[in-house]
Amino acid sequence: MRRRLSDVSGPARLAPSGEGLGQDELALAARNHGLPLEAMRYDVTPPGLHYVLTHYDIPHVPDDASWRLTVSGRVQRVLSLSPARLRAYPAVTTRVTMECAGNGRALLSPRPVSQPWLVEAVGTADWTGVPLRLLLDEAGIESGAVDVVFTGVDHGVERGVEQDYQRGLPLDVATGDDPEVLVAYAMNGAPLPPQHGSPLRLVVPGWYGMAQVKWLRDITVVDTPFTGFQQSVAYRIRQVPEEEGEPVTRIAPRALLIPPGFPDFMSRTRVVAPGPVLLEGRAWSGRAPVTSVEVSTDGGLTWHRARLEPDHGHRWAWRRWSSMWSAVPGVHVLSTRAHDEAGNTQPLVQPWNLGGFASNLVQRVPVICADPTDTA
Amino acid sequence: MRRRLSDVSGPARLAPSGEGLGQDELALAARNHGLPLEAMRYDVTPPGLHYVLTHYDIPHVPDDASWRLTVSGRVQRVLSLSPARLRAYPAVTTRVTMECAGNGRALLSPRPVSQPWLVEAVGTADWTGVPLRLLLDEAGIESGAVDVVFTGVDHGVERGVEQDYQRGLPLDVATGDDPEVLVAYAMNGAPLPPQHGSPLRLVVPGWYGMAQVKWLRDITVVDTPFTGFQQSVAYRIRQVPEEEGEPVTRIAPRALLIPPGFPDFMSRTRVVAPGPVLLEGRAWSGRAPVTSVEVSTDGGLTWHRARLEPDHGHRWAWRRWSSMWSAVPGVHVLSTRAHDEAGNTQPLVQPWNLGGFASNLVQRVPVICADPTDTA
Repeated sequence: MRRRLSDVSGPARLAPSGEGLGQDELALAARNHGLPLEAMRYDVTPPGLHYVLTHYDIPHVPDDASWRLTVSGRVQRVLSLSPARLRAYPAVTTRVTMECAGNGRALLSPRPVSQPWLVEAVGTADWTGVPLRLLLDEAGIESGAVDVVFTGVDHGVERGVEQDYQRGLPLDVATGDDPEVLVAYAMNGAPLPPQHGSPLRLVVPGWYGMAQVKWLRDITVVDTPFTGFQQSVAYRIRQVPEEEGEPVTRIAPRALLIPPGFPDFMSRTRVVAPGPVLLEGRAWSGRAPVTSVEVSTDGGLTWHRARLEPDHGHRWAWRRWSSMWSAVPGVHVLSTRAHDEAGNTQPLVQPWNLGGFASNLVQRVPVICADPTDTA
Repeated sequence: MRRRLSDVSGPARLAPSGEGLGQDELALAARNHGLPLEAMRYDVTPPGLHYVLTHYDIPHVPDDASWRLTVSGRVQRVLSLSPARLRAYPAVTTRVTMECAGNGRALLSPRPVSQPWLVEAVGTADWTGVPLRLLLDEAGIESGAVDVVFTGVDHGVERGVEQDYQRGLPLDVATGDDPEVLVAYAMNGAPLPPQHGSPLRLVVPGWYGMAQVKWLRDITVVDTPFTGFQQSVAYRIRQVPEEEGEPVTRIAPRALLIPPGFPDFMSRTRVVAPGPVLLEGRAWSGRAPVTSVEVSTDGGLTWHRARLEPDHGHRWAWRRWSSMWSAVPGVHVLSTRAHDEAGNTQPLVQPWNLGGFASNLVQRVPVICADPTDTA
């Protein structure tokens, strides 16, 4: 009996409203993981709490020393760089809030069947590496170049297509300095952990996670627009499969609350005592600097401006916000939303797309304010 | 409108066969995470890949220096120990494979609605700390003591009961040296990460995760059997809610494969080329040393003995096993099972219990062996 790769992959599927998650979605949710929202307390997410999404397997890289990153294609000089060689370049460290393009997918209806994130696919790290534009400059880009293609060693099948994970960036983004793209070899001052791309990865501040190619092996300058699977099939905003769609690029604004009080184990519903409650959280946008954050304690009917901390020089990182709330006994829904300098904000009803990308629906945190004398 | 804590918690629920996962289960799966199975390659699980299960929130501990662990109750001298003071005791480091008692729950039918693990709630770490028996000896246990109760600072509600996480150990286990229970302050040579119990946690080698109390604040020696929620309500093997049930204690034997070849993104089905394929994985048992591991490449119809590595002095850690397989084109289901010295092994049909505890069903890894010339 002969088998083809298309036998292992089903077509893209939408789960109708009311259909619970399947074991395929659970297998992804159990492997990958989000940020426990209380970990937004930390400016820089501690190791192991940053969200992780691996398309295929975490590659086995037994020996960093033999790793070579090549820069080739439409260049004057092909480069072949070891991690040690890259560490000898002047180092740049950038604090970046990274978010999965599929964050919020599991809240959509119908639900695109894929990695089922609610709101937690985010994290912030200090990434250290070499500016990509220095490497491209050293290689010498030839005329006619339009895109730069990044290839990782993670290998798998997606909708019947066998592939190494590959993404492209337009040449002006790859060679730009706002954001400055990094070939990173360190996270929070330590070598990259296996699940974050050891030994080398791309970091594109302000862009969704799909651009941040891990286990980076090849950088190829090309003179035709890159049309690989992850560029032209996946990571497009579409209503129907037939349309070309818009590419997923920079992160839409989002604010999240650290859920206050304490949780119920199963429902995650929060319990607070009556009286003043500090509401705090983080806000970010990859499209433009965050200008304000609002908070609602009545499910989005009314909004109050929160106190927004300055970015402390970290343009590409989330910013802390806070607001005092006077809780009274009853059931409440807490929400927050961010606004950015380009006029983007967050919807109360999420526009839908086929892949479940770039959602930034206002978060809803159910809270019960319980009279402490009545806990039976 | 007055609200009671019981309003936030539903009763325990079973999801009937065919009911997909709910958003409550997903919220837990997105916060907590398992070990990506390819990370079984490492003897010691790298930071961030070890499974994590947090009942409530990861507590905020801004300052280790003010943390005090008390040892009190039926003792002659109450102890109050800072993490720095504990680090001054002779240190013991033990390599321990830890597994969540709920591992495998999501494979049961009907499915107990709780944290929905498939097979991946496991990890191995080197834990460093002070033997609990030394602390109890220093405190001086009074006559009549029967249990030792461990209290963490993580706080929440479960089935209407507000609680700090608490578990007890029988006195003979707490003071025993096989396994030697640790009050641990380091994981893999570094201070405990927040999600693994910083600054102090209990480590009970060979026992399921519920015994490994994180964010440990109090050790209390008691003269009546401990009947707290996590001891008498949760973590019991029961068929019906009314029965007392058996306590969940030591880890049942389990072997897992590192899924070979490469995966399909959504189905996680594996693809291998025809020819020799190295099958490898890990095996462990908290009940007795593993004596043998078998492998099946036909879904459990026939079994072959795998090569089992010695424990290299790490009695409480998983052991590597391997076996060569000659793959031929077609669809295969790979399985493995462990046997331990006490005669325990793994079932092909999982006995069911109400909480979904202590499952150790034989793993099934679907693999397609594809002819490389026929990949369309």
